[in-house]
Amino acid sequence: MMVPKILILGAGYGGLMTMVHLQRELSYNEAEITLVNKHDYHYITTHLHEPAAGTAHHERIKIDIKELIDEKKVNFIEGIVKEIKPDQNLVLLEDGQELSYDYLVIALGSEPETFGIKGLREHALSIRNIDSVRMIKEHIEYMFSKYNNEPDCEECLTFVVGGAGFTGIEFVGELADRIPALCEEFDVDPGKVKIINIEASPSALPGFDQELVRYAIDLLEKKGVTFLVNTAIKECTDQGVILANGDEIKAGTVIWTGGVRGNSLIETSGFETKRGRAKVDDFLRPPGHENIFIIGDCSLIFNEEGRPYPPTAQIATQQGENCGKNLTAQIRGGKLIPFIPHIRGTVASLGRGEAVGVVGKRKLFGFTAYVMKKVIDHRYLYMIGGIPLVLKKGKF
Amino acid sequence: MMVPKILILGAGYGGLMTMVHLQRELSYNEAEITLVNKHDYHYITTHLHEPAAGTAHHERIKIDIKELIDEKKVNFIEGIVKEIKPDQNLVLLEDGQELSYDYLVIALGSEPETFGIKGLREHALSIRNIDSVRMIKEHIEYMFSKYNNEPDCEECLTFVVGGAGFTGIEFVGELADRIPALCEEFDVDPGKVKIINIEASPSALPGFDQELVRYAIDLLEKKGVTFLVNTAIKECTDQGVILANGDEIKAGTVIWTGGVRGNSLIETSGFETKRGRAKVDDFLRPPGHENIFIIGDCSLIFNEEGRPYPPTAQIATQQGENCGKNLTAQIRGGKLIPFIPHIRGTVASLGRGEAVGVVGKRKLFGFTAYVMKKVIDHRYLYMIGGIPLVLKKGKF
Repeated sequence: MMVPKILILGAGYGGLMTMVHLQRELSYNEAEITLVNKHDYHYITTHLHEPAAGTAHHERIKIDIKELIDEKKVNFIEGIVKEIKPDQNLVLLEDGQELSYDYLVIALGSEPETFGIKGLREHALSIRNIDSVRMIKEHIEYMFSKYNNEPDCEECLTFVVGGAGFTGIEFVGELADRIPALCEEFDVDPGKVKIINIEASPSALPGFDQELVRYAIDLLEKKGVTFLVNTAIKECTDQGVILANGDEIKAGTVIWTGGVRGNSLIETSGFETKRGRAKVDDFLRPPGHENIFIIGDCSLIFNEEGRPYPPTAQIATQQGENCGKNLTAQIRGGKLIPFIPHIRGTVASLGRGEAVGVVGKRKLFGFTAYVMKKVIDHRYLYMIGGIPLVLKKGKF
Repeated sequence: MMVPKILILGAGYGGLMTMVHLQRELSYNEAEITLVNKHDYHYITTHLHEPAAGTAHHERIKIDIKELIDEKKVNFIEGIVKEIKPDQNLVLLEDGQELSYDYLVIALGSEPETFGIKGLREHALSIRNIDSVRMIKEHIEYMFSKYNNEPDCEECLTFVVGGAGFTGIEFVGELADRIPALCEEFDVDPGKVKIINIEASPSALPGFDQELVRYAIDLLEKKGVTFLVNTAIKECTDQGVILANGDEIKAGTVIWTGGVRGNSLIETSGFETKRGRAKVDDFLRPPGHENIFIIGDCSLIFNEEGRPYPPTAQIATQQGENCGKNLTAQIRGGKLIPFIPHIRGTVASLGRGEAVGVVGKRKLFGFTAYVMKKVIDHRYLYMIGGIPLVLKKGKF
């Protein structure tokens, strides 16, 4: 009897939850599970804005994959996926390894969506992974250090954040909190620092409750953040950004948080996509591939009004859980369960001790929302690593 | 009766020692002493290589000027000298202040000497003051953070140090010590990091005893530093350096330690100079100006063979002492003492617990030399701030 091979690509929220479910449910002889990930660690994407601003060390949001794996049940490969060949049931890694599978889970996350804005890819930094946020932190500090050597360099102390969605808002809140310490360390007058958050939509946090948006904006403005809404960026240069109206904002640091698209491997592997996200059936399978699941930021799912859900950790986690259940069912000959997201709530951090959010139908502000965010964080840690992981990493 | 005004420009080794001597010797009604300095702190120039490499925090080598001053005797002005008008006994500051004097001490330190090498001023960093070394530290860390986002960027991990004199050697020793921690922090393979020290002279530490040079080079090579001697840099670009033979070394960071010249204000104020250093008489006065003393890196003095002494902290300190004595004599109608340097010894740090040097006629190696360097450091702290300063800052 052949043991089916399950190959999971990516150890983000979706891939990791799939793996955690499978290793809990399946016994040793039911499946040969392999998890491939670019790094030997998982990271808490929803907290990347903290090491980006430098308010927390990146180690705080890294979780060693070996700690989460039962090595008797799951084989882990640190590697970068180069190509997916769905018609041959093969995956090629950059180091030359070829991996065959009976079932494939594609959970390769996202890439920044630049909407064709010129120069963004070359000149803007992005809050994407541990490496990219470490570079943001160092870039910010480098600009502070540069300022004292080039006192005319006002743009050294100007930080433009493109996009005032969740990531943008959470980052500017964190950065504003960090400014006093940076000014102290680098002997810089805090009055010289500018944080400018630019959003093309008519409002920050598009789609969020207006009362919560107002609370967030008021608070962040008090912390020194300037918002430019209804303002599109036309181009990013090595000098800063050029707005749609032709105005230039000189800035030594531009951080783009304006959106994400699915990993480009989805497109290049021939799946039908929109913004790099694969169309999937009710069971998260791309049409015509009954042994492939595409989950997390790589998959496109729609709400009851027919509009796509934005990619979130919450949905990715639920998809991973659903995918794990359906793989178990498929192996055991059970019935597949369609994926239906349950949006429990959304909380955006605004920096130290402050947040806004909606949980169920209730709006939360300030410290209450902040505590709720911690509850959500802890719940996730519990799901992937149980009590030990909550105790180890739960302090952020 | 008019109280004579003594104006001291610069609170480096020379200016500070002048001030310390005067405030100890003169009583309140003998002179009106003013000290002008760009910052409100003095810094231990001979230890700048440590915060530059990031092995010590820059606060460790900063000393608050207010702590050294008897405010009843010395008036301190934080300001930048814009112009010296020796014929009008006037000094203008950048903030518009005009300061008149009866006696002037010019101790404005040095600037990097680029020897006309193209691009050096624009693209190389220099170990010059707190601000410049803070930028070096941040630049190094930024390059490490960049590497993980651009794995092809080998030059991100290449650090070129131009000049293998004292500063160059001390810096590469320190940087080599820091590499393991940087690699750990940024998840970089230490084997990928290159430190290349380039020297135009036939040997590193030109003018130093050959046995000591060999010891230093062997040790630093073991720490991973590559030396290119007999190698001139023709040009510095934003990509690295181009050597005289046309070879290019790609490097994300170039640090120039190849030499210094006197502060350019010496030249622009009309004093006769060579490499920006003023010719002075036996009493450190420029010809034709009996009420002006030029000391430290700004002054040019010659040894018995008629060759100029290199500018060092040791000579600057002794000149400050001599200048303080001569000012006291001049005010009291005493006799001036000619300045004769006493080269007590020279010790170059090679990183953690290691140094080489000559004290008297004795060669020192390794830990012995390292301890001697600490003794010299402590002696200096004692001279400017007594026991309390030694206890406070003596740990570096």
